[in-house]
Amino acid sequence: MLKLYVGNKNYSSWSMRPWLALKAAGIPFTDEVIPFDFPAGNPAIRAISETGRVPLLIDGDFKLWESLAIIEYVAELFPENAVWPSNRKDRALARAYSMEMATGFRGIRNACPMNLRRPQKPMPITDEMRQDIDRIETIWHRSLAKSGGPYLFGNFSAVDAMFGPVVNRFEAYCLTEHPVSLAYIAAVKAHPAWQEWAADAAKESWIVPEDEA
Amino acid sequence: MLKLYVGNKNYSSWSMRPWLALKAAGIPFTDEVIPFDFPAGNPAIRAISETGRVPLLIDGDFKLWESLAIIEYVAELFPENAVWPSNRKDRALARAYSMEMATGFRGIRNACPMNLRRPQKPMPITDEMRQDIDRIETIWHRSLAKSGGPYLFGNFSAVDAMFGPVVNRFEAYCLTEHPVSLAYIAAVKAHPAWQEWAADAAKESWIVPEDEA
Repeated sequence: MLKLYVGNKNYSSWSMRPWLALKAAGIPFTDEVIPFDFPAGNPAIRAISETGRVPLLIDGDFKLWESLAIIEYVAELFPENAVWPSNRKDRALARAYSMEMATGFRGIRNACPMNLRRPQKPMPITDEMRQDIDRIETIWHRSLAKSGGPYLFGNFSAVDAMFGPVVNRFEAYCLTEHPVSLAYIAAVKAHPAWQEWAADAAKESWIVPEDEA
Repeated sequence: MLKLYVGNKNYSSWSMRPWLALKAAGIPFTDEVIPFDFPAGNPAIRAISETGRVPLLIDGDFKLWESLAIIEYVAELFPENAVWPSNRKDRALARAYSMEMATGFRGIRNACPMNLRRPQKPMPITDEMRQDIDRIETIWHRSLAKSGGPYLFGNFSAVDAMFGPVVNRFEAYCLTEHPVSLAYIAAVKAHPAWQEWAADAAKESWIVPEDEA
């Protein structure tokens, strides 16, 4: 059985991505939360992870890190589970968007920490945040127009999981009022995988002050 | 025939990565250089690329960006060409290291721009650069010890291409004296794909002042 170590479900955006991708695809796995509510991180993470970071996938004696590498590995192990879109060009675009998410959008990533229990409250939108929001909405609206929704390439796939933390940010910090974006946000939040993650997050009592923006 | 738009071969680290991966794997493709020697980039890039960036892969009427998404797409199109290591766990590690490269190592990426014609000359190594160098050498030395070399997983694969610009940085800025690293750098530079890219770069006359550190 695969095991995924994750950070606090309320805050850990990188952990949420592969967790949602695996859960939504019906991959069998267990998880364990290693909270990072200490100023210098949690030494328990360093003890099991050579990068000192979560998420970390355990498959027997094999350890794997980096969200997208975990997703690709599991997609190979379970080829019938449609972790990625089944059409090759859709899959390629899904990976390109996932890479944009992994390497960019630092405007909203820095200003708006993922925080599932944050009450909805607007924040000032800087130029850098505006650029990120516009690019993300371009990706979402085009993909949804082409696929017909409810997810970016029809069924929920790894690229929707990669944007999961952005769904929280867009809602919690009131970053959009566009009806197409709001419908997509609602669809992601209605997915059983999201519901399960959010229910776990709601049970956590840890507070990470630097993520309470 | 696939076509890859790339930036200046002397400077464009992101372009070098998929180009080396495709070339080394024997994928048939043409390329075209779009130089970015203008202060605000080259409007010709914006005209063909919605992200305004190279590399950009053209496959008929399909456009794809992001180095790793390009590499995955081509790996799927040419499954016999061993773009990634053939062993599943090696391939997973290769992707994890590639993601570390894509999302991190900003210490040396910011301080040491890729510059193939830069004469070898040391620069002061900051703490941030030291962390990056140590992590990269950990990855290199462990992989080479396990595979026996000359490349990280034996034969040249996409992960060696992902580290291609680092090979230049390590050498040009004298970032290592470790014999295992120096042997790996020599092996990458001796590969015919690197030789072809470097020969093209040597013919370029553009100077990008901000990349002349």
